[in-house]
Amino acid sequence: MNKRLIVRLAGRVLLVESALMAVPLIVSFIYGDGDHMAFILSMAISCACALLTSILRPQNETLRAREGFSVVALSWIAVSFFGGLPFCLSGRVPSLIDSMFEAASGFTTTGATILRDIEGMSRSLLFWRSFTHWAGGMGVLVLSLALIPKMGARSVYLMRAESAGPAPSKLVPRVGDTAKILYQLYIGLSLLLTLCLLLCGLSLYDALLHTFSTAGTGGFSSYSASIGHYNSAAVDVIISVFMILFGLNFALFFYLRQRNWKAVIHNSEARVFLCVVGIATVLVAVNIFTARMYNSFGSALRYAFFQVSSIISTTGFATTDFNRWPLLSKCILVTLMFIGGCAGSTAGGIKVIRMQILAKSMVRDVRRTVHPKGVFTVKIDRRSVDESIISSVQGYFFTVILLLVAGSLVLSLDGFGFETTVTAAITTLFNVGPGLDLVGPAGGFSMFSPLSKIVLTMWMIIGRLEIFPILMFFSPTAWRK
Amino acid sequence: MNKRLIVRLAGRVLLVESALMAVPLIVSFIYGDGDHMAFILSMAISCACALLTSILRPQNETLRAREGFSVVALSWIAVSFFGGLPFCLSGRVPSLIDSMFEAASGFTTTGATILRDIEGMSRSLLFWRSFTHWAGGMGVLVLSLALIPKMGARSVYLMRAESAGPAPSKLVPRVGDTAKILYQLYIGLSLLLTLCLLLCGLSLYDALLHTFSTAGTGGFSSYSASIGHYNSAAVDVIISVFMILFGLNFALFFYLRQRNWKAVIHNSEARVFLCVVGIATVLVAVNIFTARMYNSFGSALRYAFFQVSSIISTTGFATTDFNRWPLLSKCILVTLMFIGGCAGSTAGGIKVIRMQILAKSMVRDVRRTVHPKGVFTVKIDRRSVDESIISSVQGYFFTVILLLVAGSLVLSLDGFGFETTVTAAITTLFNVGPGLDLVGPAGGFSMFSPLSKIVLTMWMIIGRLEIFPILMFFSPTAWRK
Repeated sequence: MNKRLIVRLAGRVLLVESALMAVPLIVSFIYGDGDHMAFILSMAISCACALLTSILRPQNETLRAREGFSVVALSWIAVSFFGGLPFCLSGRVPSLIDSMFEAASGFTTTGATILRDIEGMSRSLLFWRSFTHWAGGMGVLVLSLALIPKMGARSVYLMRAESAGPAPSKLVPRVGDTAKILYQLYIGLSLLLTLCLLLCGLSLYDALLHTFSTAGTGGFSSYSASIGHYNSAAVDVIISVFMILFGLNFALFFYLRQRNWKAVIHNSEARVFLCVVGIATVLVAVNIFTARMYNSFGSALRYAFFQVSSIISTTGFATTDFNRWPLLSKCILVTLMFIGGCAGSTAGGIKVIRMQILAKSMVRDVRRTVHPKGVFTVKIDRRSVDESIISSVQGYFFTVILLLVAGSLVLSLDGFGFETTVTAAITTLFNVGPGLDLVGPAGGFSMFSPLSKIVLTMWMIIGRLEIFPILMFFSPTAWRK
Repeated sequence: MNKRLIVRLAGRVLLVESALMAVPLIVSFIYGDGDHMAFILSMAISCACALLTSILRPQNETLRAREGFSVVALSWIAVSFFGGLPFCLSGRVPSLIDSMFEAASGFTTTGATILRDIEGMSRSLLFWRSFTHWAGGMGVLVLSLALIPKMGARSVYLMRAESAGPAPSKLVPRVGDTAKILYQLYIGLSLLLTLCLLLCGLSLYDALLHTFSTAGTGGFSSYSASIGHYNSAAVDVIISVFMILFGLNFALFFYLRQRNWKAVIHNSEARVFLCVVGIATVLVAVNIFTARMYNSFGSALRYAFFQVSSIISTTGFATTDFNRWPLLSKCILVTLMFIGGCAGSTAGGIKVIRMQILAKSMVRDVRRTVHPKGVFTVKIDRRSVDESIISSVQGYFFTVILLLVAGSLVLSLDGFGFETTVTAAITTLFNVGPGLDLVGPAGGFSMFSPLSKIVLTMWMIIGRLEIFPILMFFSPTAWRK
């Protein structure tokens, strides 16, 4: 392992982060909220550390898969640590662990918060919080659609690249060009959303902040009531639709722009994703309407659609405290957390395409019981999926459940009840944000012990990087000569 | 599919069940509890139905894998239905669904109950309840160690047969002989336990009844306080040890009798199983001792050992209401429910060997991230495991989790809370018995709706038959020409 090269490259990412902090610094000057020194200090510290790493002279510049993944893992950890400095240095979040939790929650586009009084925070810090979502979302997009497919380790990472359908690796031949297209699409969609929100009467500050959180499928809001604060059907529907859009594979938007309708129509992942959203919305709407939580079915449908879109896209906004919904609706929402969005999006979760592969291989296993000697292949979009990809997806699923169990066991030391504990592990690993009970939309993560917060922070990063880069980074195998 | 042959063979199993009912009938006469008519009627009905099936003349007698699995699936469903008749006909359990739930819980060796007043039941019915555990346990043993390995569908069922270590298919060449050896071992161990319990001062009735429930790793007791009723350290330890023994692969006892020490020592599944029991016991003991639930550490250790053995062997006896234990201990117990016992035992759960394969293939996936082009094999007991087996185990794991989610969604309609709902699905699918909250050791399943009870009954049978035979039985593929 080329340690020097890894640290050097992670240092460059840190330099970018330090530049990003200029944005909330400007916001701080505009509103004069007094937190500018926290940002200046954080920028200086990050910059100094980043420059320190450039002293290292690696013997060679060869970047193999393991170095690539290590850079990604180390960068995300470093970015979370330094990104938390403004919270800490401003004195508004006294604990360093809490600050790092909040920054990790931002960059991993989770949206879980340790803040007890959101309205009491300064405008620049709230802006930074949501801005980390936007930056993190862009990072994940570029990572999953442009960089990873070039690293030759596709089968253990996002298998989308090698599977059927619009394969991201085929967008355009060069990595830099793919990244550029993604930047354009991401910024374009974000601008569109900001415009829509401005038209709904939101202030530029509010519109930008919620655009950042929606685009990154993060979920931080400047109000403790989240999107429910506006109590506007128009805002609800617009954000619902955009959460769905940001949960789709970005390759689809590329094909749309190219007018390659065939590639869009033949994408079964998007179809399944939209079907799940539709079915879940109707089920939840019927459930909450018959439980007499809303006066009209239309109103029930509006709240159901928003909450379903928010959870399945792993954004985590809320327009109501779904913790008070009947149990069936809550269980449906938890199930959606597992599924998550499409591959190649800013969303978290297991991803729809993996679920398709898992479900189809289950059907195959039933067929094998009937015909023990028969040969059956799993097909997605009419093309058969390689056995090594099926196996890696199945292995991925086991690892996810194992992490959920391990996380729950550590959290259970705090004794906050079964529902809180289990959903806290689920919502962080899948980068959703809110869970149920104490970590529901009206609650937060502030009451957990420092140990639990560190574990939850790690779980957010592990989930965001689709597990294996981080597991590898901390495994002895990777570092052995 | 040879439908006539399937029904005919299932009819024979029903005939055996009808004969088994003679045992509680004798008990009823001995104690004169007045329930003899219920048993006589049930025997008559079962016998009549069984004889009706013998009218069917199948065109041929060829038994392929699919017919074999169908017989197993149909038998277990029929046996649960007819086995529930005595409860219903005695008038002590008025609902047919409840009666079938109780019988299925017995034959699948789960031990979940819908009875509210156990002490108010007649002696013969309580005896029948535990006797179904014993019969069901024997059925599963013979099925998994003698019949299935001969059906040529090993890779989708218990993969133990094809994997390394003491392979049951190699016990002795002929199916009948293997079954005979298993009967002997099962009866021998049961007699030993009865003897131990008699020495502890239990009545013959109590000793037999709890032997049946322990041997089948079922968990029905004649007291609502379960084994806690005796409040005896000796009884606790004896039953703990025997629960562990019945959670081990029965092939081990065969090798022990043959003095084949090598085969016993090289069995990593047993080692892992015992290690998990040890670690879990110590963790739980420390947790409940530091929570000041018990005066001495020795006492904490005794209760921890019993509960851990009971849950991991999926028996479900209790000596205390672990629902009141601190959250960590409860979460550890739920985790143990997933693991379960060893393959080739009467225990349920995912099974230790599957967990070993899953964990090792996860390590392999991490290695693959480091060396994308490397070739790695998963080894158990120093022999490499076939890729098709790894894949089927991984597929099994996904299906299990899917069933847990689906079951929880249906149960959530009843609105009994997240903890009750989720653990009810877990404890029935893994054939454990008690869960947490309302379905904890002091609770029961009587409050669920008929729909939920039907689903839970199906989940017990699905879990007991290791999922695929039942999924196949209800899939259209199996019945298509």
